Amino acid sequence: MSRSDVEADLLLHGNLVNVYSGSISESYVGVKDGRVIYIGENRIRAGKIIDVGSRYILPAYIDGHIHIESSLLIPSQFAVTVIPRGTCCVIADPHEIANVCGVEGIEFMIEDSNRTPLKVYFMIPSCVPATRLETSGAEIGLEEIEHLKRNEQILGLGEVMNFPGVIMGDESVLAKIRACEGMIIDGHAPGVRGRDLCAYIAAGIMSDHESITADEAMEKLSLGMWIMIREGSTAKNLAELSKIVSKGCPERVMLVTDDQHADDLLAEGHMDRVLRRAVEEGIDPIDAVRMVTVKPADYFGLRRLGAVAPGKSADIAIVNNLKEFKAEIVLIDGRIVAKDGEYLAGVKRSIIKESVRGTVHTSEITPEDLKISSPRIMDGWVEVWTIQVIPDQIVTEKVKCKLPVRNGNVLPNAKNDTAKICVVERHHGTGRIGKGFVRGFGLKRGALASTVAHDSHNIVAVGMSDDELCRAINRVREIGGGLVAAEGERIICELPLPIAGLMSDRNAEFVAERTEDLNEAAHSLGCNLKSPFMALSFMALPVIPKLKITDLGLVDVEKMRLISIFAGSESGEST
Amino acid sequence: MSRSDVEADLLLHGNLVNVYSGSISESYVGVKDGRVIYIGENRIRAGKIIDVGSRYILPAYIDGHIHIESSLLIPSQFAVTVIPRGTCCVIADPHEIANVCGVEGIEFMIEDSNRTPLKVYFMIPSCVPATRLETSGAEIGLEEIEHLKRNEQILGLGEVMNFPGVIMGDESVLAKIRACEGMIIDGHAPGVRGRDLCAYIAAGIMSDHESITADEAMEKLSLGMWIMIREGSTAKNLAELSKIVSKGCPERVMLVTDDQHADDLLAEGHMDRVLRRAVEEGIDPIDAVRMVTVKPADYFGLRRLGAVAPGKSADIAIVNNLKEFKAEIVLIDGRIVAKDGEYLAGVKRSIIKESVRGTVHTSEITPEDLKISSPRIMDGWVEVWTIQVIPDQIVTEKVKCKLPVRNGNVLPNAKNDTAKICVVERHHGTGRIGKGFVRGFGLKRGALASTVAHDSHNIVAVGMSDDELCRAINRVREIGGGLVAAEGERIICELPLPIAGLMSDRNAEFVAERTEDLNEAAHSLGCNLKSPFMALSFMALPVIPKLKITDLGLVDVEKMRLISIFAGSESGEST
Repeated sequence: MSRSDVEADLLLHGNLVNVYSGSISESYVGVKDGRVIYIGENRIRAGKIIDVGSRYILPAYIDGHIHIESSLLIPSQFAVTVIPRGTCCVIADPHEIANVCGVEGIEFMIEDSNRTPLKVYFMIPSCVPATRLETSGAEIGLEEIEHLKRNEQILGLGEVMNFPGVIMGDESVLAKIRACEGMIIDGHAPGVRGRDLCAYIAAGIMSDHESITADEAMEKLSLGMWIMIREGSTAKNLAELSKIVSKGCPERVMLVTDDQHADDLLAEGHMDRVLRRAVEEGIDPIDAVRMVTVKPADYFGLRRLGAVAPGKSADIAIVNNLKEFKAEIVLIDGRIVAKDGEYLAGVKRSIIKESVRGTVHTSEITPEDLKISSPRIMDGWVEVWTIQVIPDQIVTEKVKCKLPVRNGNVLPNAKNDTAKICVVERHHGTGRIGKGFVRGFGLKRGALASTVAHDSHNIVAVGMSDDELCRAINRVREIGGGLVAAEGERIICELPLPIAGLMSDRNAEFVAERTEDLNEAAHSLGCNLKSPFMALSFMALPVIPKLKITDLGLVDVEKMRLISIFAGSESGEST
Repeated sequence: MSRSDVEADLLLHGNLVNVYSGSISESYVGVKDGRVIYIGENRIRAGKIIDVGSRYILPAYIDGHIHIESSLLIPSQFAVTVIPRGTCCVIADPHEIANVCGVEGIEFMIEDSNRTPLKVYFMIPSCVPATRLETSGAEIGLEEIEHLKRNEQILGLGEVMNFPGVIMGDESVLAKIRACEGMIIDGHAPGVRGRDLCAYIAAGIMSDHESITADEAMEKLSLGMWIMIREGSTAKNLAELSKIVSKGCPERVMLVTDDQHADDLLAEGHMDRVLRRAVEEGIDPIDAVRMVTVKPADYFGLRRLGAVAPGKSADIAIVNNLKEFKAEIVLIDGRIVAKDGEYLAGVKRSIIKESVRGTVHTSEITPEDLKISSPRIMDGWVEVWTIQVIPDQIVTEKVKCKLPVRNGNVLPNAKNDTAKICVVERHHGTGRIGKGFVRGFGLKRGALASTVAHDSHNIVAVGMSDDELCRAINRVREIGGGLVAAEGERIICELPLPIAGLMSDRNAEFVAERTEDLNEAAHSLGCNLKSPFMALSFMALPVIPKLKITDLGLVDVEKMRLISIFAGSESGEST
């Protein structure tokens, strides 16, 4: 039997979206042994035929840049959630778990990702630790890169966030880029332009997902970068960047999410949501599809993916129309893995390695540990450098606040919306605690604590009393990591995140429900931020201006150094 | 000194053609250590500045598919000829020399290609020998592929001409494709459409350069193939295929030559000629440039090539305008390698390996060896199957001719434009000679002989008497291969091709002049074909219909078998 006369296992019939020709035509798609073997107008012999009528046959989707940890789901549960939406592949940067567990964390992600049919590729996190102004759980150096890059699921080096280092010729970061020569090198260059951008690209960096204006994206594109337009749970750049996709599809543009929370995944979807948004922004639907299929496949060199065409993996999404992109049938490797939104492919059993559990290494703390002593004043007021939260942004302001001192201890002040914030080192049991104040959470009482605290993921906690802070922090410790809200003597809500203190071992529905409960709990304590725990998770990120806090203390990000919380001017009890 | 503040070695200023954005803008281009480090509107510090005024700065050109042997030049001399035209890189399929010398021939091509700055990459010839109906000098099997593919200049498997084998699932050809998995697999599928084409592509074949209609090319494109539009010395498809480059540049299309003769290279150029032709056909000049720069670089994964952009090799052509594409300055790796058409970069000394010389292994022949005996008739006429030449085409017709028999020998007949044609096995000294007749050369007297005889490159000769044939063949043997025209006792013109019997060791000017002299010599013998030796070289190619001749005898290509020259009906002396 000749190859061109073989019987297909499965024959689909419907409106095929051709990402090469940019056209749609009623076609037959023959599948055998997991691969597409035929596309054409004529019916061929097949074991099974599915006629999808007026529905559209698309290549299943690829998310070119995502941190799976941001969903608080382990890769297999993430897969269960996104496959029914039409996703067949994601390229993950396991930057978060790498900061906690290093290579073992990355290897856990790889192993866990193989429990479902989702194709998960990984980039080696390039900036672990992110800075020397915090204590991470692990480092990813050259040795780790050499070890990891041999894994078939590793495609290259993850977003090189240390763009100042690249531009200045910092040998430590350039050596990492060299170590990944020939592989994919992702970039991260917010606002970098002109000659600095040339230097960044000349170092070997191939893509960027941080543009926030069309002008910036066009400059990067014209210098040879691939542009990832980001539309995730946090950063949403499609409205602005859709301008670069003006007439026809620019050749080096794709759509990515960067991060997606479990509740958003359930409520709105994954790449199907991004496709809807792209079409809402006026992008031609076929171009939109190309930017989540053939484009990322080309960029990452995933030759078997990205199109419904002979020789490609039969990874196919069948959708109702090219506006809603509601996936009715999803195939991966020729197998139906989801139907009408229901995941059908099972999750392989696996025992989660102990090395990614029990990652909160700190002694129980006491309220005494959290006290902030005023150097000179026993009772009165003191002026302190305070982190000012800006709603819905991860940048903060650096402001001065006058706070009350009682018995030599500086106290938060609800009247002025100022809470205490602490970062407890949790990787090495050093007992180190960074302490300071933050304004803008709206808390009246209680405390929130979390092991999700970018980038080192120590325990970050915000609260109105040392007792409540202590309670929340100790509870986080007891449950091996997670999100906790405490009020008085009581833990009022919690979401355990036993995997590295970053991810639940439960499903998206559980995580989404608990996240909602936690938000409500925080709001009941007076917090007026939309996502209190997310806001909290960025307070310890010392690469984002202006004032942040780590286990080492308060960080003036613009000066890239630790500063005292005391603003210098102290006064006796007055106002 | 920071990387973004480094001094450039060289700064160019002119109209930069940006192949990413598709725009042209007055720009500075900074070069350091052979790489582009800066593109922008602002002047930066540099050791040397070249302002090219209103001229255009383009990426230097890449020819994605060429058989260098067709130029009759060795790679280094080919490079000397094409670099001043703006070419920086070619992807060569050394199919011809592989048929003569096998791996050693390919290794010679690689070594010789490294004598100049031209970047020459190679594809492993996939079909050596082309058929079992001829005797080649060598075979390229799995073992040879495994050996060759480790070489850094090898990019993958050359055009898989055995498309029937692929479509029928022939294990020997599929194994070669599998051996090159992950590399580039070039195709060759003239007229293959529909389900056969799907099977061919599904086997892993990524490109095609054989389309002759826009419709055929569009079908291949829509199934995921890269289309190479061919515009060489022999096949010229641009006029028709420019239709697929309608609005904007299709993403998977490039321009290639396939073959280019020395005289055409000198008179008309290389990729600059193809660019002129593309613009003549109405293709937007920037799209045309993209199809000889960024497109082949993308297809072949040559990340450092194809654009003037940060991090890329400073391979640059500076041209007068985007219509004539006259290269005034050519840079490779930041060095000026040609100026005003003059090659400036030198040729590294090298001793050509003995293994590619002296490849004509045959004893001296006598006129007796060339006689064709009539089986039954001593004097009279006999009907023989005759190759009918079609001017300017490589396909032939199969016709019957009545030829005179004298003393039992069948003779050519000038009155009927029928000459004798012989193929002398020259690789293994078997003494095997295929003999037959050909109509359409126009010869009145004399003989032509050549060691360029696709695909096995035995000695092919056409002539009006056994004496003259013998003289021409023996002279070819004496000079170790080449092209020879003989008349009576005299060799009237010759071009020695000592390298594998395929290439001269002299420069393009010499080869072009001799080629012209040879054509004139052939015309003086009565030949009315435009390129007599090229026509002759295709007479022994048994994969092209309908009737051909090899050292094993007359081949009916459609039946893929050897046939007797005698058409069955013989008669006594009559007409």
